[in-house]
Amino acid sequence: MGEGRLPDYIPELSKLNPNKLGIAVAGVDGAVLTAGDADESFSIQSISKVFTLTMALGKVGDILWRRVGREPSGTAFDSIIQLEHNRGIPHNPFINAGAIVVTDTVLAGHQPREAIGEILRFTRFLAGDDTIAIDPAVARSESEFGYRNRALANYMRAFRNLDHPVEHVLGVYFHQCALAMNCRQLAKAGLFLANGGAIPSPFSRVVSNKRARRINSLLLTCGQYDGSGDFAFRVGLPAKSGVGGGILAVVPGIASIAVWSPALNAQGNSLVGTHVLEQLVSQSNWSIF
Amino acid sequence: MGEGRLPDYIPELSKLNPNKLGIAVAGVDGAVLTAGDADESFSIQSISKVFTLTMALGKVGDILWRRVGREPSGTAFDSIIQLEHNRGIPHNPFINAGAIVVTDTVLAGHQPREAIGEILRFTRFLAGDDTIAIDPAVARSESEFGYRNRALANYMRAFRNLDHPVEHVLGVYFHQCALAMNCRQLAKAGLFLANGGAIPSPFSRVVSNKRARRINSLLLTCGQYDGSGDFAFRVGLPAKSGVGGGILAVVPGIASIAVWSPALNAQGNSLVGTHVLEQLVSQSNWSIF
Amino acid sequence: MGEGRLPDYIPELSKLNPNKLGIAVAGVDGAVLTAGDADESFSIQSISKVFTLTMALGKVGDILWRRVGREPSGTAFDSIIQLEHNRGIPHNPFINAGAIVVTDTVLAGHQPREAIGEILRFTRFLAGDDTIAIDPAVARSESEFGYRNRALANYMRAFRNLDHPVEHVLGVYFHQCALAMNCRQLAKAGLFLANGGAIPSPFSRVVSNKRARRINSLLLTCGQYDGSGDFAFRVGLPAKSGVGGGILAVVPGIASIAVWSPALNAQGNSLVGTHVLEQLVSQSNWSIF
Amino acid sequence: MGEGRLPDYIPELSKLNPNKLGIAVAGVDGAVLTAGDADESFSIQSISKVFTLTMALGKVGDILWRRVGREPSGTAFDSIIQLEHNRGIPHNPFINAGAIVVTDTVLAGHQPREAIGEILRFTRFLAGDDTIAIDPAVARSESEFGYRNRALANYMRAFRNLDHPVEHVLGVYFHQCALAMNCRQLAKAGLFLANGGAIPSPFSRVVSNKRARRINSLLLTCGQYDGSGDFAFRVGLPAKSGVGGGILAVVPGIASIAVWSPALNAQGNSLVGTHVLEQLVSQSNWSIF
Repeated sequence: MGEGRLPDYIPELSKLNPNKLGIAVAGVDGAVLTAGDADESFSIQSISKVFTLTMALGKVGDILWRRVGREPSGTAFDSIIQLEHNRGIPHNPFINAGAIVVTDTVLAGHQPREAIGEILRFTRFLAGDDTIAIDPAVARSESEFGYRNRALANYMRAFRNLDHPVEHVLGVYFHQCALAMNCRQLAKAGLFLANGGAIPSPFSRVVSNKRARRINSLLLTCGQYDGSGDFAFRVGLPAKSGVGGGILAVVPGIASIAVWSPALNAQGNSLVGTHVLEQLVSQSNWSIF
Repeated sequence: MGEGRLPDYIPELSKLNPNKLGIAVAGVDGAVLTAGDADESFSIQSISKVFTLTMALGKVGDILWRRVGREPSGTAFDSIIQLEHNRGIPHNPFINAGAIVVTDTVLAGHQPREAIGEILRFTRFLAGDDTIAIDPAVARSESEFGYRNRALANYMRAFRNLDHPVEHVLGVYFHQCALAMNCRQLAKAGLFLANGGAIPSPFSRVVSNKRARRINSLLLTCGQYDGSGDFAFRVGLPAKSGVGGGILAVVPGIASIAVWSPALNAQGNSLVGTHVLEQLVSQSNWSIF
Repeated sequence: MGEGRLPDYIPELSKLNPNKLGIAVAGVDGAVLTAGDADESFSIQSISKVFTLTMALGKVGDILWRRVGREPSGTAFDSIIQLEHNRGIPHNPFINAGAIVVTDTVLAGHQPREAIGEILRFTRFLAGDDTIAIDPAVARSESEFGYRNRALANYMRAFRNLDHPVEHVLGVYFHQCALAMNCRQLAKAGLFLANGGAIPSPFSRVVSNKRARRINSLLLTCGQYDGSGDFAFRVGLPAKSGVGGGILAVVPGIASIAVWSPALNAQGNSLVGTHVLEQLVSQSNWSIF
Repeated sequence: MGEGRLPDYIPELSKLNPNKLGIAVAGVDGAVLTAGDADESFSIQSISKVFTLTMALGKVGDILWRRVGREPSGTAFDSIIQLEHNRGIPHNPFINAGAIVVTDTVLAGHQPREAIGEILRFTRFLAGDDTIAIDPAVARSESEFGYRNRALANYMRAFRNLDHPVEHVLGVYFHQCALAMNCRQLAKAGLFLANGGAIPSPFSRVVSNKRARRINSLLLTCGQYDGSGDFAFRVGLPAKSGVGGGILAVVPGIASIAVWSPALNAQGNSLVGTHVLEQLVSQSNWSIF
């Protein structure tokens, strides 16, 4: 363990102990199994893109796909090259540019503070846990060093693919990335995707069965940036990673899994977390393939 | 139907009737259901890449992945741009460049004629049908107009990522693409991928369960060129398309499906074939997500 | 005349009369010939990059070339693609990204207001004309719609290739682009480049003879964005264009020429202005080749 | 001297003594000055592109520019990326792809052997020296390892930007690159470009004055691949380099210069040759700027 690297472009995240490892498995039957540092909070970062995508689809439906694609990008998470080729339309909602468009949709004319509150409430609702919070130090750190995201947002604004002021959109974006959750909370928050779109207990429908499957397909093809193909090959589950070291994986019909280990591989995904998921799936026959 | 376009860069394929439509579903229980033009032969084109990939992995195992990646490309099937960025290593085995490397591996020091014979025998074995043949007119047509593939092959040769003479590799490649099969044969040939790596009846193991799952994962993330994400979103099955209008899809544990309709969408995949699969999966709950 | 198009991304410039045409030729002997609308002010836009490059080289010398290249870009003036390939180092000082780095160098720790004043004073000094001013409406318009330039600046800041806050640098940049000059003033302001680096009358050295030649070489290879090769082929003079329709050309040892006509060709350079220069050079044997 | 590197992708050229250095200056008055290894033959490689471009323009005139651009490429000499973006139209006649199109034009329906003979005769005529020959070992070596050029040629053929069979065009191309000349011969062969398009003695017009100037402009903007801007900045003369270590430079109205030193800089141009030209121009005031 610990062969990977901590991210150096978000100072708050570079201070973490790379040897941490936690896991939580939430079954659709309501049971939650945990191990290791499963109750320690970490910054979920890009995993938040799953929740805001769910919110945006709820607000505008499939019209969203006019502004963001559904294809793997073949490039790094913060690449700006494909935006020029595609005239401001990001490849998918899980690279940074795409997630910023999704956040713009969530804003929907409100003030940043209101949108941040709405995202926080939605995440708490999904996890059934009102103690989830946003880490303001991480949000500040992201904002202070967020030049690449500012470049992406301004670039899309030039193509009129952002409706709100750049700093409003990024203000919300940096705060959603700074959501602090532990593995237990995260596994529970993703359970609706394993359960046909509904929180099992107490039962509450979040999205339709069809939409849940579609979000899962996007997680499978685009959820690990330019390491998505390799992750599908090795693990075989829809999943979203974050540079905070977390991964949220979905076993359709069975369970959702959250792992956390801070050191990252070359694609920016948790090195040990990926290994753990690979082992778990290999022993459980949980691969969707 | 028929809103799509026939491919114009392979003259033999541009003469097809765009209104043809056939489908065959081969269950792991041995049953085969067919409808429409399911017994009419067509050129399977890139679907052959599934069979040669299986052969290459059998010959050299995971060493193959040193020469070809496992990531969606984000670009068209015959793009040469990413080859320059990645110094001759194709993104995945299902874009043309990657499939040419796979064919180079299948050659393994033999003469083109021998390798072509081996591919034909393997495909007949998978389908349990010795009447499958290669269409020499299509092979000639591909060779005559195969300038882009020659560019790709020479370019990889410059990076020493081809072991055999370019014309030998392309000779085999153009012939594998010219395999003529009908939906019934194609569904049966792909059944081992739905059945954990083994032909069900008479039982014959082709690859390990793990390898079958991994091939399926590659089909899901890379099987429809730069339309793979959209196909996963809409259909939700591992599948490989060919510009002859065929699609081979895998429902793990249940069935393999072959559809054929010649008119293509903008990504070079069967327009009506994709629609039919989308409807079928939507009604059958066969999505892997 | 008037087959070209007015720029639509800077609203203030889209209102111009496309049929305007002015020309001024300033000889190293001190004579100035004018014709047409040579005394009407227009927005010099990117032509200002010549003056700020001269200032930046005066401040930091050849160290500047560690932060910006000297090669034609092969892409449009506001492309962001090559910045990703070159990790934040622009190809040359005359594309937008390079000019923004140059402006960052001119800032040199001062406040934007001071740097703007310094640029204005330097331009007045070169032209020997204290009536030259900055058009505040144009500067505001550029700032309001300057999303691409904000993207470029933030992107370079991410690679630490800007020392000052992005909005400070862009504030200066938008004002330098909004310099309003007529052909007479512009020809005089560029005369030092035709005269071995010195203003002829009253004599005042601006840069060394060697530096003047080097600036001229950059004008030749990079001065017309991705139309520089064609301009050199047709006109054969070092020159800088601006989207306001102006072109400043240098005839080494003989004269500087300013032409103005607002309608632009596909590369963003004055359509009629280029034609006029081509005719003039063809008749005068002034080509440097 | 000798800090540069010999090219490793053409085995015949990797055997050279990197410490060789020759120079020849041919004045428009007929005088030829030489120094060092000026009478030792070397492979002129890409410098031959100047002679074939002159021939092609003589055959088809400005129609050539429909098939090849006149802009610096911003990328390496053998890049294939821009060909995909520009649908088979090379940026300029001095990168490999562009030179291959030029050679296709020179072929003009003849057999490769005839075209090779015509190129040899034209070069001998320009230099006034019938002893100039093609080195068959170099031509074979280029052909044997010419995979990248085969990729470029096939790629352009796919876009119908080659009229003749790929191997015919490349056969001629590899032979023109294998022209063996010494500095004295090379300087004389380029003299017409310094003399308004005519060989001075005995007087013989090769191209019009206008065409000579235009070829010179292309040499200035595109003659040193992606080092053209830097070369113009440092040396300030139209010039063409070859990976054999030669450079042919033009001082309009005064002289042509050939230098030769085999070790190359990062852009593939003679390291010492460039230094020598920089010194010579700096002392002679021969810069065109």
